[in-house]
Amino acid sequence: MDPSQLHCLSAGEAARAIAAGQISAEQLVQACLARIREVEPAVQAWQFLDEAHALAQARARDADRAEGRPCGPLHGVPVGVKDIIDTADMPTEDGTPLHAGRTPDRDATVVAALRAAGAVIMGKTVTTECAAYTPGKTRNPHDASRTPGGSSSGSAAAVAAGMVPLAIGTQTNGSVIRPASFCGVYGFKPTFGLIPRHGILKLSRTLDTVGLFARSLDDLALLAAPLVGHDERDPDTRPRARIPFTETLASPPPLPPRFGFVKTPIWERSDESTREAFAELVQALGGTAGGVVEEVEMPPAWAEAWGWQRCIMEAEMAFNLDAEWQRGREQLSPALRQQLERGRAIAALHYQLAQARIPQLLGALEEWFARFDALITPATPGVAPPAETTGDPAFCTLWSLAGVPALNLPLLSGPGGLPLGVQLVGERARDARLLRSARWLQERVLS
Amino acid sequence: MDPSQLHCLSAGEAARAIAAGQISAEQLVQACLARIREVEPAVQAWQFLDEAHALAQARARDADRAEGRPCGPLHGVPVGVKDIIDTADMPTEDGTPLHAGRTPDRDATVVAALRAAGAVIMGKTVTTECAAYTPGKTRNPHDASRTPGGSSSGSAAAVAAGMVPLAIGTQTNGSVIRPASFCGVYGFKPTFGLIPRHGILKLSRTLDTVGLFARSLDDLALLAAPLVGHDERDPDTRPRARIPFTETLASPPPLPPRFGFVKTPIWERSDESTREAFAELVQALGGTAGGVVEEVEMPPAWAEAWGWQRCIMEAEMAFNLDAEWQRGREQLSPALRQQLERGRAIAALHYQLAQARIPQLLGALEEWFARFDALITPATPGVAPPAETTGDPAFCTLWSLAGVPALNLPLLSGPGGLPLGVQLVGERARDARLLRSARWLQERVLS
Repeated sequence: MDPSQLHCLSAGEAARAIAAGQISAEQLVQACLARIREVEPAVQAWQFLDEAHALAQARARDADRAEGRPCGPLHGVPVGVKDIIDTADMPTEDGTPLHAGRTPDRDATVVAALRAAGAVIMGKTVTTECAAYTPGKTRNPHDASRTPGGSSSGSAAAVAAGMVPLAIGTQTNGSVIRPASFCGVYGFKPTFGLIPRHGILKLSRTLDTVGLFARSLDDLALLAAPLVGHDERDPDTRPRARIPFTETLASPPPLPPRFGFVKTPIWERSDESTREAFAELVQALGGTAGGVVEEVEMPPAWAEAWGWQRCIMEAEMAFNLDAEWQRGREQLSPALRQQLERGRAIAALHYQLAQARIPQLLGALEEWFARFDALITPATPGVAPPAETTGDPAFCTLWSLAGVPALNLPLLSGPGGLPLGVQLVGERARDARLLRSARWLQERVLS
Repeated sequence: MDPSQLHCLSAGEAARAIAAGQISAEQLVQACLARIREVEPAVQAWQFLDEAHALAQARARDADRAEGRPCGPLHGVPVGVKDIIDTADMPTEDGTPLHAGRTPDRDATVVAALRAAGAVIMGKTVTTECAAYTPGKTRNPHDASRTPGGSSSGSAAAVAAGMVPLAIGTQTNGSVIRPASFCGVYGFKPTFGLIPRHGILKLSRTLDTVGLFARSLDDLALLAAPLVGHDERDPDTRPRARIPFTETLASPPPLPPRFGFVKTPIWERSDESTREAFAELVQALGGTAGGVVEEVEMPPAWAEAWGWQRCIMEAEMAFNLDAEWQRGREQLSPALRQQLERGRAIAALHYQLAQARIPQLLGALEEWFARFDALITPATPGVAPPAETTGDPAFCTLWSLAGVPALNLPLLSGPGGLPLGVQLVGERARDARLLRSARWLQERVLS
């Protein structure tokens, strides 16, 4: 292998090569650091990156292997971590001057799980301000005038730009699927409650979900497996059996999966080119007449769900960022300040009424998932817009509210050849099956 | 046994006599019905009671035994059920004209558990309006000019008046411990989440707790055991091991229990006679100098907890009674209407801030429970007041907020010889141990 091209390896390839002694973790991290030096000036994906510290971790992993210590599934593989996720050895500044210089004592549960799996924590990736809407410095690797999407901006951009094969982020509304769509990488927001959130900046207990970025479905599976778990400090996680992500993804579906194509009540927000691209995608899958795809109509009443999500998100943000509001609201962006003001004005009655809609929504979705293995819907209204915003999360909102697993597949392109994602949505707790259905669809489309 | 006195048996005595064939369930229910005919005109504990239906259940239990079918721990024992708890064979009217004639399809989980244990569902006991503060028709069996307390008014009064040996109710603020204190019976509010609430009028998800009434600790244990369980339809219950209530209560404590006497920041609300009675109780236990009781000071900041409880309760009541508000608020009492108006005005931010205090409170209580087996505190400020109100629940508020188990022991009497309760409070999920400590204390006081 050409040592200068090791950053192009998938995480799975890299882990296997390290395990087999074909390459060292240090060589891999060196190649990724070289790639970062090359493209970071344009992309600006990193909030914190200490080359020496990354290399020291890599050498420690190489020493593990040399001394015969057990190696985890991500042994020696560098992973980017969104800068709202605590790391004991690096600052975690949450994208706000209010937390500048913040240095947590401990790793978040997911970071500890990554280290236990052998990963090298490469550095901290840029987040929007408090994982809300105000952009950080990161630019889209495909066009530096455009946004990478947010709020997991740096994680998506770093994976897209070949700086790291894997990264983790979080989604409360569209913060994983949207940047994955804009940056042209695979994004995965698992079922709510699957991955513990302890040690991560809280925005919304009801909605916050850890999400993953990679350049293939296999790599998503590889990354997801060690992160799933029960942590008493995240009361929405539960003890559950190990999920065989990689094994399920490697096996063919017992029956050809069936897909529901859902335009959703916000279809009019999508660009013309997006509508055309999805029409072509449905054609490529054999059309809606007797093919594997059926177009499903969402009851117009569901349009209210966007308001419920906003009510819950803003009410919970006002609570979780109350200390920041009290201490230094003048240091928040006007957009975030307005959002928190709205959240502070929400009545407990409306908040509870919105919460009560989630089980209703899940009940309605259950009927669809009795007919379909997955739903197909846009990830974003179109390609990445100019960098002043992080783009519209609306095509992710409903699935964040429902807590169902969602994937971004970078299968389409829009104006200017910019990436455009296909979002696949699955049933709660059927995450591995969603990955398998995604592979089946992707092979069909790309063949 | 004198058949006319069977209503005086404890539930345990009755169950054993039925199991041994010494009496029939029908004889027991006949005796209870006779007692009801005698005292109901003054007490008015029942919202619904169909003698023929109660007797039919009793005869069916006798037939079970005659035919060798398995008999549960409450086989043939009549139980009163608060009229906010659904019963498939009787109306459940929630103490409001808005639900007049309401006939549920199904039993609440606790009613199904009672039937599975062999109990005869005697009838539905009077509740205050929607289990809030506006009194129903029930009067105190010790003095018909006074309140039985609320909201589980009929359940407490029926047990106190010898109409049934057992009854169930609910507590959101003080609705089990308070009527038990005023009526002079044992009351038990178990740990939050121990007994499923599915099929019971919801006031407050965070606070609502099923509670029990009996005339002895043994009977509380007998009744509690079959009610504890996991029900997916109550998301605050969890799978857990069977709790050996009766066995624990029957065994002596391994060490003499230690008690903390807590006046709480609302001590000034208690009557002079209550303060004297508690001073005597502490003396009877050997005083606070080297005895089994130590007086503990509650930090004055805890006085805020009453406001948190009210915020949570009223915000959640506004949500849970929103349909009633929309449909017919003019049919609600002015007091309930005002309470719902206050609840509707609460901000989601304050509601969440109040919720966040519960784990803090539990953390602080944990330190006390490292030193004490139970806390001793008044159940009510004094004896039952006149029947225009249901009395002050304030001595129950903190323990309802914390979700810790609480007991009323009818050990004291106040002015006019009226009953006055001693409240014992235990650690979460140590309910059986709390009963055992209560027995130890009671034997010491009564000996």
